Amino acid sequence: MSAGFGERVRAGIDARGPLCVGIDPHGSLLASWGLSDDAAGVREFGLRTVDAVAPHVAIVKPQVSFFERFGAAGFAALEDVLSAARNAGLLVIADAKRGDIGSTMDAYAAAWLSPGSSLEADALTVNPYLGVGALDGALGLARAHGKGLFVLAATSNPEGRALQGAVGSTGGSVSAQVVAEVSARNAAEVQGDAWGSAGFVIGATVDWTDAGLAAFAPSAPILAPGFGAQGAEPRDLVARFGAMAPCVIASESRSILSAGPDGLADATAARAAEYREALHD
Amino acid sequence: MSAGFGERVRAGIDARGPLCVGIDPHGSLLASWGLSDDAAGVREFGLRTVDAVAPHVAIVKPQVSFFERFGAAGFAALEDVLSAARNAGLLVIADAKRGDIGSTMDAYAAAWLSPGSSLEADALTVNPYLGVGALDGALGLARAHGKGLFVLAATSNPEGRALQGAVGSTGGSVSAQVVAEVSARNAAEVQGDAWGSAGFVIGATVDWTDAGLAAFAPSAPILAPGFGAQGAEPRDLVARFGAMAPCVIASESRSILSAGPDGLADATAARAAEYREALHD
Repeated sequence: MSAGFGERVRAGIDARGPLCVGIDPHGSLLASWGLSDDAAGVREFGLRTVDAVAPHVAIVKPQVSFFERFGAAGFAALEDVLSAARNAGLLVIADAKRGDIGSTMDAYAAAWLSPGSSLEADALTVNPYLGVGALDGALGLARAHGKGLFVLAATSNPEGRALQGAVGSTGGSVSAQVVAEVSARNAAEVQGDAWGSAGFVIGATVDWTDAGLAAFAPSAPILAPGFGAQGAEPRDLVARFGAMAPCVIASESRSILSAGPDGLADATAARAAEYREALHD
Repeated sequence: MSAGFGERVRAGIDARGPLCVGIDPHGSLLASWGLSDDAAGVREFGLRTVDAVAPHVAIVKPQVSFFERFGAAGFAALEDVLSAARNAGLLVIADAKRGDIGSTMDAYAAAWLSPGSSLEADALTVNPYLGVGALDGALGLARAHGKGLFVLAATSNPEGRALQGAVGSTGGSVSAQVVAEVSARNAAEVQGDAWGSAGFVIGATVDWTDAGLAAFAPSAPILAPGFGAQGAEPRDLVARFGAMAPCVIASESRSILSAGPDGLADATAARAAEYREALHD
């Protein structure tokens, strides 16, 4: 078997830096790109984005909801986009935030992480409300195929604070508990400083104190939305994540996509360079 | 506009009792029904289930993951099943457990709750990890169209206990906090004892003490998975939910579906009667 998912991400960041382009075809972007607000539009949007960014970044993150809103036709478009992205050598994180238990969760994992599935991606974002342990079947399937999960730990939206900052019986916040449980699974998977298959989602603009989170030694990549339009800048990679910065995947969507289909390649190349500099200065 | 979602559910329970049949075409059931483990199989499974149960219950709950595992083809099958169920006069809860923020969450709501969407259902299960407030856009869309949400509050799987039992700054558990926040939204929507559009998901076998939950006056339906194969019986409706029992939608899947395509109608009719008796004794 080839390298596990964590090490594949590390190699991608080493080669091209931490910028991940979110593929978020919402209505306003489709309009500004001159595309129709339908399944054909999101397909075209996704394929053009893949073409434009593939030479410049290692990772893309299609936002599933913007395809799902067109039902089966939107999913057919997403299948084409996922396939094009993987064929272009990109690591693809399906941002679907799925979360369930038992065989139901396993079915989601089969959909997104089984080799040969029409929706095959390299990783899936998942929601731990039903317990990190409820994701173990999905994690096992991911590991068996060199795939990964990104588990929501701390999000930067204010509505999430009360829940994610609640304190469990072990004394840590919900976010800290998720980080600890995910870390334990990586520790059981990999040796030394290798990265495991279970990544974290921690928003770039999260207030770590509010979230009850302290710096930790990440055993896997941290997917950090919130760069770009939501306010975080390349310099915040180190300013906010400190020693953890080398593990961070910095995800931007609107800020880059708003360059439009003609400006997207140059905008991505320039922004990718800024992140590499920020990380290596 | 016609009645809101909560009142539509109440009318359904009044007419046919609280049993909801889950449409869960997992591999083992497809095999025992003699159907193929592919999109055609899940379509046939769903359509036959709708036909068999429509005369006997008010509510069905398709489990989206079992369709999603076949990608766009599976979603096309699901569209047919959703449409058949709604045309048969059933209230359809899409069990997708979606959860995100802002325009991303709105896109999920548009997919599942917009009139005319190919995936149109009557209600959607949603995940509050990003905050109940992050679901407000979806709730607004639901209300505008007589649709509903069911927000995960307390699930009965043991892996979920630590997170859902964590205690927030207001002193209540995460589950209690979700119940309170959802209840406040219903109180702002409806008057008197009318049911609002934002329901709760509370597993039938939840340990309420572990979950930090106390009996409350439900302002909306409580969707309770865990009846049937997971261990709860019709008599538990009142034994476990007490004064809240009239608000409970008792969801069974495998226990009923395992009757097979030929036995399903009779099994459903018999079980539906048991629940009505349990509720009215």
